[in-house]
Amino acid sequence: MAAGEFDLIAQYFAPLAPGHGARGLLDDAALLDVGPIVITTDAIVEGVHFLPGDPIGSIAQKALRVNLSDLAAKGARPLGYLLSLQWPDTRPAQQIAAFAQGLAQDQAQFGISLLGGDTTRTPGPLSISVTAYGHPLRRDPPARAHAQTGDDVWVTGTIGDAVLGLAALQGETLGLSDDQLTVVIERYRRPQPRVAAAGLIARVARASMDVSDGLLGDALKIARASGVAIDLSIDAIPYSDAGERWIGGDAFSERAQRLSGGGDDYEILFTASADKAASITAWQKEHDLPVTRIGAVRAGAGAGAGVTAGSWPIIGFSHRLGTP
Amino acid sequence: MAAGEFDLIAQYFAPLAPGHGARGLLDDAALLDVGPIVITTDAIVEGVHFLPGDPIGSIAQKALRVNLSDLAAKGARPLGYLLSLQWPDTRPAQQIAAFAQGLAQDQAQFGISLLGGDTTRTPGPLSISVTAYGHPLRRDPPARAHAQTGDDVWVTGTIGDAVLGLAALQGETLGLSDDQLTVVIERYRRPQPRVAAAGLIARVARASMDVSDGLLGDALKIARASGVAIDLSIDAIPYSDAGERWIGGDAFSERAQRLSGGGDDYEILFTASADKAASITAWQKEHDLPVTRIGAVRAGAGAGAGVTAGSWPIIGFSHRLGTP
Repeated sequence: MAAGEFDLIAQYFAPLAPGHGARGLLDDAALLDVGPIVITTDAIVEGVHFLPGDPIGSIAQKALRVNLSDLAAKGARPLGYLLSLQWPDTRPAQQIAAFAQGLAQDQAQFGISLLGGDTTRTPGPLSISVTAYGHPLRRDPPARAHAQTGDDVWVTGTIGDAVLGLAALQGETLGLSDDQLTVVIERYRRPQPRVAAAGLIARVARASMDVSDGLLGDALKIARASGVAIDLSIDAIPYSDAGERWIGGDAFSERAQRLSGGGDDYEILFTASADKAASITAWQKEHDLPVTRIGAVRAGAGAGAGVTAGSWPIIGFSHRLGTP
Repeated sequence: MAAGEFDLIAQYFAPLAPGHGARGLLDDAALLDVGPIVITTDAIVEGVHFLPGDPIGSIAQKALRVNLSDLAAKGARPLGYLLSLQWPDTRPAQQIAAFAQGLAQDQAQFGISLLGGDTTRTPGPLSISVTAYGHPLRRDPPARAHAQTGDDVWVTGTIGDAVLGLAALQGETLGLSDDQLTVVIERYRRPQPRVAAAGLIARVARASMDVSDGLLGDALKIARASGVAIDLSIDAIPYSDAGERWIGGDAFSERAQRLSGGGDDYEILFTASADKAASITAWQKEHDLPVTRIGAVRAGAGAGAGVTAGSWPIIGFSHRLGTP
């Protein structure tokens, strides 16, 4: 692909970069002058974060959305991104049009544009690194380390759908309806970054992060970074209709544990002082997104920092294809 | 590697990120508030941009330096970078310490720090994407598209050493001394971004880019982007002692053509109005870096845009491992 990089950029990627600073992607660097930014980088790799047979447009969107999810969790409005694309020698170059089309759709949906990029061939798997930046909606964005004793713990959306989606794609029989299978597979392939909640997060959150490696493990990250203990209410963890059906209504089952320990949710896990509860409840009534109180923060510095969730073991790990 | 990402970051990469905005790499995003920036992203892939047996510290430095080279060519002083690292399942994790050490050395040398990052395992080759940003030393940095009729064409340093370095590593007999072999191999593995020339570039350059895909092809990119013709003086192209020895003093030989058409030089190719010549000559006398006038820009819009270099064919292509 290297030989045609110039043409490729001109044909497929330059239209994604209308901004003055992007210089039509015809330059070696871009100009960015937007004031303070929140910036993040995340890569997805074929066979690790997505399946080789996933639609190429949704692969592009997943690469972008996992980064938009990080911005939303910091209470930032997305502005743009840079793309570093490594295209396998063995994958048809014709797919690049659909790849770029997937990006174009998401740019329109989320109001962002491409600022710069790099494309290269690779003898290995398809790999996409995105660096996304956004406008922080408050001066000091919520950090993992900012949870305080007495905070409530909240999470957006539902947990575990992507775990079921991946299981379905790998041939596991789940006993779900066709519609439910469609929903969970879509949740795995094309996560919904909670961009709409960025304003709420900026307004109410103390600690905040997106749930990418599993709710339980990610809660542990907040607990450790903040030097606190988090008590999770297992039976408050929100599941979708598909999730509820799969766990058979038993919030304490091993199946429920698998969903909460899984990953790829791209929901926002945050803490907020108790006096924010009414405001959060009001917000979620006005928006088409549940925000559920699932626990509380209590004192627990040093070795006491951690997460309790009934009898469930809480470990920090990454749920990734091929991870032992 | 995913399971240990947290420990890995804490042990090896957090020390590279002392800045307040980086939040010790313990967060999902970083804060950046430095005014207007020039920003660029470039990836290097094992088996494409470097050899599997290259020292791991120099691989890390190459990933960083190819980006610093882009910033220098835009007349920008480097400030920091984000790192997206994809580590092969088959490469010993013990090498990560030396990888981080290579970055630490370059951070000290170039006065930059790590702002954020992402690490993941990959079933494929080692792959490193860097997004680097810097402070533009003038308001409107030189672009590829800004060459004007009557400009002189200049290049820093020497051309073709990395071509020889790669050839030597691939077993080609070059007839160079041991010292010359050491020099050209080092030039391939660990390019020297011309960060020190950023001030000069900001002061004098109209069009500018770094030479990564070969001097001739990259000159063609400036010509096409600017809608001009560039006449290169073949016998003015600067070669190192190793390069001169290899071409046997014949600037018009096929060997010289291979060096000028090669790549991985990471020198800066720029145009400047004729009245800047004295200033450029004065600068290079004060610095340990040759800056050589190698051509001139003349009118040549539309189909006339291009490069002439005697009888040499000028094509735009990427000199990469495995490119046909």
